[in-house]
Amino acid sequence: VLAPPSNARLKAVRRLSRRTIRERDREFLAEGPQVIREALAAGASSRVLDLFVAESELDRHRQIVDDAVAAGIDVHLTPTRVLAQLSDTTTPQGLLARCRFEKWRLDAVMNPAMRMVAVLANVRDPGNAGTIVRTADAAGADAVVLSAESVDLYNPKCVRATTGSLFHLPVVVGSPIAVVVDAARVAGLRILAADGAGPVDLDDELDSGRLASPTAWFFGNEASGLPADLRDLADAVVRVPIHGRAESLNLAAAAAVCLYASARAQRRLP
Amino acid sequence: VLAPPSNARLKAVRRLSRRTIRERDREFLAEGPQVIREALAAGASSRVLDLFVAESELDRHRQIVDDAVAAGIDVHLTPTRVLAQLSDTTTPQGLLARCRFEKWRLDAVMNPAMRMVAVLANVRDPGNAGTIVRTADAAGADAVVLSAESVDLYNPKCVRATTGSLFHLPVVVGSPIAVVVDAARVAGLRILAADGAGPVDLDDELDSGRLASPTAWFFGNEASGLPADLRDLADAVVRVPIHGRAESLNLAAAAAVCLYASARAQRRLP
Repeated sequence: VLAPPSNARLKAVRRLSRRTIRERDREFLAEGPQVIREALAAGASSRVLDLFVAESELDRHRQIVDDAVAAGIDVHLTPTRVLAQLSDTTTPQGLLARCRFEKWRLDAVMNPAMRMVAVLANVRDPGNAGTIVRTADAAGADAVVLSAESVDLYNPKCVRATTGSLFHLPVVVGSPIAVVVDAARVAGLRILAADGAGPVDLDDELDSGRLASPTAWFFGNEASGLPADLRDLADAVVRVPIHGRAESLNLAAAAAVCLYASARAQRRLP
Repeated sequence: VLAPPSNARLKAVRRLSRRTIRERDREFLAEGPQVIREALAAGASSRVLDLFVAESELDRHRQIVDDAVAAGIDVHLTPTRVLAQLSDTTTPQGLLARCRFEKWRLDAVMNPAMRMVAVLANVRDPGNAGTIVRTADAAGADAVVLSAESVDLYNPKCVRATTGSLFHLPVVVGSPIAVVVDAARVAGLRILAADGAGPVDLDDELDSGRLASPTAWFFGNEASGLPADLRDLADAVVRVPIHGRAESLNLAAAAAVCLYASARAQRRLP
């Protein structure tokens, strides 16, 4: 039998709409069945502190609720209207979790056994950032780094776009770009900066065999591109070729092409 | 000297928020400098019927306004508040165009000289649809088809996500999937259906050399995937391999990987 949430619990959720509180308390909100299912399935149920399900959506989310109860998570049957007010979306899905965030340390995560890391150098759009975390997970990256210059990983839009991948692999946040570059070098990774105006064609990189090396891919800002000093520090500044008339690719699409090119080079090519 | 828009012009814009009116009048709205710059640059200025610029943003958009005036387009200096009300976005950029849409005919567009076509079989999300149009343009596709089962190309969110690529290459709308499949066969294209659960690995397709053939790529719905009959009709149902723990890729990211794999096979591999 599920009980309604106390006012104190609801208050704890409301506070997490503020980034400063999220960082102080090391908690964040995950919304919708996809992210929460992944949190439970990924053996990350210890990271789910509370689960709120809308009264009207209980039947639809029954399996997730049962799994959460079995994992010992506090599940709160919440008036649908109350949960909608806590939602970040215009079409709430009736499921919200308060989660603990894992504080991954850059120096502990980066190591010489790594083959691929995706670094968001100064990505500002939460949808792009979350999608790149998801794509890096799919492409088999060992870790993702969001530099201090990038959007907050725990922004609700970003969490949603990861569709749970932030529970699948280490995602380091908060290190300045220059520190990430140093850590990547120490770990023996080749540093590739993705830039639409880069001098090196991604297909040439593939043909050369160099993409098979352990690689840290750096992705820049949607509007302003990569910081100039990062371009100087990189081993190569690589462009996805534009064969047609488009001026550029969407950042998340370009990242998908780059990360999958590396995955192919490392896993398939002779 | 720019004049303010008449009430009749403003009314003509407001009406275009409705799909039925867009289709009846064969007009749509394009918003923001990126799309409008592309419309003018792509030699598509004859498709721009009216340009509305916010009084407060005239200096910022001066170059576009000058280009539009030079191309003989009616430019209207519009009260900022009025233009904001016409905008589809929460952060209007002060630039809106009423455009004519080109009615591309499927049978005229599909032809045996084509090498790559992207087909949105039943894509519902306007952001994904527009991003795939942009990516197909970048990857050098000859055309894009949005089947009748897909979202409206001229939805404002979709137009914005194309960042102007809908002015760069033929985009056919309104044909049922089965008709598109037939037309692709007649044009001699291999029919590849992208599906996360497909039996064929994209890397195997690349290794086999088959991806170098002229290809129509079909992309399905974000939630429900491809229609089952399309899976049966395809020459191969291809998955982008998932090397990590993500359950799936974002549709637009998967499309980017598929289209660029074809571009590489056709342009680079021996």
